[in-house]
Amino acid sequence: MNIPKSNFSEWYNTIIKEAQLCDLRYGIKGFVVFMPWAVMTMNKMYGMYERSLEVRGHVPALFPALIPESYFMRESDHVKGFVPEVFWVTEAGGNKTEEKYAMRPTSETAMYTMYALWIHGMTDLPLKIYQRCQVWRHETKATKPFIRSREFHWIEAHDCFATREGAMAQVKEDMAMAEEVIHGQYCVPFIFFKRPQWDKFAGAEDTYAADALMPDGRTLQLPSTHMLGQHFSKAFDIKYTDASGKDEYVWQTCYGPAISRIYAAVIATHGDDKGLILPFDLAPLQIVIVPIIKPETKDSVLANCEEIKNFLVKQNLTVKIDDSERTPGFKFNEWEMKGVPIRLELGMRDIESNSVILVRRDNGQKTKVSTLDPKLLIEKIEESANNMRLELKKKADEWFEKKLATAETMDELSKKLETSGFIQVPFCTDQMEGEKCADLVREKAQANMRGSIFESKEKPDSAKPKGKKCIACQKPAAIYLYAARQY
Amino acid sequence: MNIPKSNFSEWYNTIIKEAQLCDLRYGIKGFVVFMPWAVMTMNKMYGMYERSLEVRGHVPALFPALIPESYFMRESDHVKGFVPEVFWVTEAGGNKTEEKYAMRPTSETAMYTMYALWIHGMTDLPLKIYQRCQVWRHETKATKPFIRSREFHWIEAHDCFATREGAMAQVKEDMAMAEEVIHGQYCVPFIFFKRPQWDKFAGAEDTYAADALMPDGRTLQLPSTHMLGQHFSKAFDIKYTDASGKDEYVWQTCYGPAISRIYAAVIATHGDDKGLILPFDLAPLQIVIVPIIKPETKDSVLANCEEIKNFLVKQNLTVKIDDSERTPGFKFNEWEMKGVPIRLELGMRDIESNSVILVRRDNGQKTKVSTLDPKLLIEKIEESANNMRLELKKKADEWFEKKLATAETMDELSKKLETSGFIQVPFCTDQMEGEKCADLVREKAQANMRGSIFESKEKPDSAKPKGKKCIACQKPAAIYLYAARQY
Repeated sequence: MNIPKSNFSEWYNTIIKEAQLCDLRYGIKGFVVFMPWAVMTMNKMYGMYERSLEVRGHVPALFPALIPESYFMRESDHVKGFVPEVFWVTEAGGNKTEEKYAMRPTSETAMYTMYALWIHGMTDLPLKIYQRCQVWRHETKATKPFIRSREFHWIEAHDCFATREGAMAQVKEDMAMAEEVIHGQYCVPFIFFKRPQWDKFAGAEDTYAADALMPDGRTLQLPSTHMLGQHFSKAFDIKYTDASGKDEYVWQTCYGPAISRIYAAVIATHGDDKGLILPFDLAPLQIVIVPIIKPETKDSVLANCEEIKNFLVKQNLTVKIDDSERTPGFKFNEWEMKGVPIRLELGMRDIESNSVILVRRDNGQKTKVSTLDPKLLIEKIEESANNMRLELKKKADEWFEKKLATAETMDELSKKLETSGFIQVPFCTDQMEGEKCADLVREKAQANMRGSIFESKEKPDSAKPKGKKCIACQKPAAIYLYAARQY
Repeated sequence: MNIPKSNFSEWYNTIIKEAQLCDLRYGIKGFVVFMPWAVMTMNKMYGMYERSLEVRGHVPALFPALIPESYFMRESDHVKGFVPEVFWVTEAGGNKTEEKYAMRPTSETAMYTMYALWIHGMTDLPLKIYQRCQVWRHETKATKPFIRSREFHWIEAHDCFATREGAMAQVKEDMAMAEEVIHGQYCVPFIFFKRPQWDKFAGAEDTYAADALMPDGRTLQLPSTHMLGQHFSKAFDIKYTDASGKDEYVWQTCYGPAISRIYAAVIATHGDDKGLILPFDLAPLQIVIVPIIKPETKDSVLANCEEIKNFLVKQNLTVKIDDSERTPGFKFNEWEMKGVPIRLELGMRDIESNSVILVRRDNGQKTKVSTLDPKLLIEKIEESANNMRLELKKKADEWFEKKLATAETMDELSKKLETSGFIQVPFCTDQMEGEKCADLVREKAQANMRGSIFESKEKPDSAKPKGKKCIACQKPAAIYLYAARQY
């Protein structure tokens, strides 16, 4: 690599290219090709998220990628929010289409039109459906691979409930899933913020969004879950007949983990100066075997490598022997750059001592493991994989904790932003009237108000401020909000 | 259901609706909503196909859904074949786009533009990449759920080789994958035909396509694999430097299993008058437990059901207890219609005798299984699942074999088509000059020439005809081709 991670922007662009994660040379602005090494990890990430959704009662469906303009126009806030970003299909089969079709920027309007036909009574609720798909948004902001592109890959879950309480419980379940999957399995820390009213999803009552931090201290929004209330159910006429025979509008939530963007957070959180580091369960290739060969030992060493590989493959591990003509040193660098979690080195001397050298990608730790009992090697690999996950998570969490700070004045905020990520500040309000103060923070400190911590138990500093003044307007502060610079 | 499968068209439309597989009420002609019960099976089908591709060295990637018009126009046969079916994006973000963008009807032109940048030398070959995605085609033929719609879900694999032999070996590997997955795991029989020259893929040298048979004897095209030769590599300038330092064009193949369409073949092949029948590994729900309850035994029976369910779930089986208020008879019908492979019935009498009744969906066979040792129940379920797969396959194969026939005159062909599926006929040629004869067959017998059997070993009747005349032009026949009515 030869680029220190502290120079994050250049490091990120270099790793995208060197590890062949994404090709930016496709002929449509803002569209990229997601390359195999990235997609192999993204598919594993998809699998974990889909399992988490299904265990909690979600079922998959597939809705059309095109949405008739007439569907799209039914909820006015949603229209205002999304129409400026839509790609429109206007011709098909050599003719103008009867109506314009939006390439889905998100699927509320496609799905809720059908939900109105599907939901009749209490037994149809809750309805919990997700789809794994891609969406298209004609972003005006600068695009950056995985972080922001005009086509991205996500999951969207759209749920309906009989009561507001049911919907709020779903919002919390969505948060729990993010904690389980993104933090627990991808090892990426984040904070769930309740967004200020001026920054919520187009058509939502409230938006709750998970913000991660990139190494340069800027924040990246990961999944958000939205309490839609009855806005959409009224616009789309989604009703159920309650126990007393009365028609009621359903309460709705939606949830959108963008796998391609979360992948950017995985790269950024774990990588180091040498390249990618990936948790064992996310790695496209988990184990690389590098034979240490002299011409006269080649056949014997390779045969031993093959034997070990075959044994590991049977344990459902992904394994490759790098028997190319390159030097071992070159191979070490290459596979470290690519983030292969475990390297096994095997030469004649190791074979003679019935052992193999196991090297961990994350910390470089070398261990000599006996090959006399193959079970020992499996145990050691499992132990390394597990420790790697725990240690990557711990390291990321510790770094993240250090990026939290507090400020009470605009100057202090600006200063803290140079070294920290999320800065807690006293603020007048997170209701619409507060937007002017947020504009002032953006102007003076080049930071965004990300919101308040939702139902924090462990973080007492998220309690209401007492005797503090709003960092922008100096009126008495009613709430602590967090400021950050964002992607 | 109440519709006999012999009335296939009505049976199919009814099952789509009753089992909630697909909703046709979406507001764009030819676009449907793929509903959860179908998508759960399609996801399992995707998983099996993806594993089969990956085991054989394919890696996944994700290319843009939009293709610039300029990319699309580079291979002239391809343009002619696909342009009439394209959906075009012409507006984005409130403005006309610089260029028109095609929603991919297939991805050759998107992928091969990038392949030209990726392939340099021998070490880049073979390149074997697949993507799991949806494609859009403005079909003019009548649409039918899963069988033909303007948006469908598929896998497309696009491979490059240094030699023609490498590409031909891939064509055979693609056929082996279809045999392994579609026949072996989905239990759907088919024949791989080498299509006549007038019916090949736009831009291919040769097309090999797997044709299944629907219950009404009409054929449905499942995956096809195409020998592209160097047509595209010349149009897209995909070259590698060979050992002698000379630049050579690569040889290419592409392969497209349309999962949504193969799903139609699964429904049609295995279903019966009562509804869906699904192989155990494809079922969204594998086991339904129906409690046989009297008011006074309810708690005790349900507790026992719960215990069995928890045990089965731990074995990674999908299990549901139907504890709704409906009668057992109603539940039996419902879950039979939905194709749940195994039903367990449990009432107080069963509990007292430490047993449970296991009922197989495919043949209605009832077995009393002891619950004293839970391992016995698992063994019995595994045995039933395995037998079901083998017997569904055998039944489908036997039916399929009976649908093969031969004819030597147009009259005989017309007659045989009433009761059979694929009719082998002597034909003048499968080269372009034969198209007129194929037109005549379409006119006189309302059948299509599907092609010759590719490299048949077991079927001696596919050898060259001797002393026979072409069924259409009466000139000496050079080849046996198969005729069928098609979807």
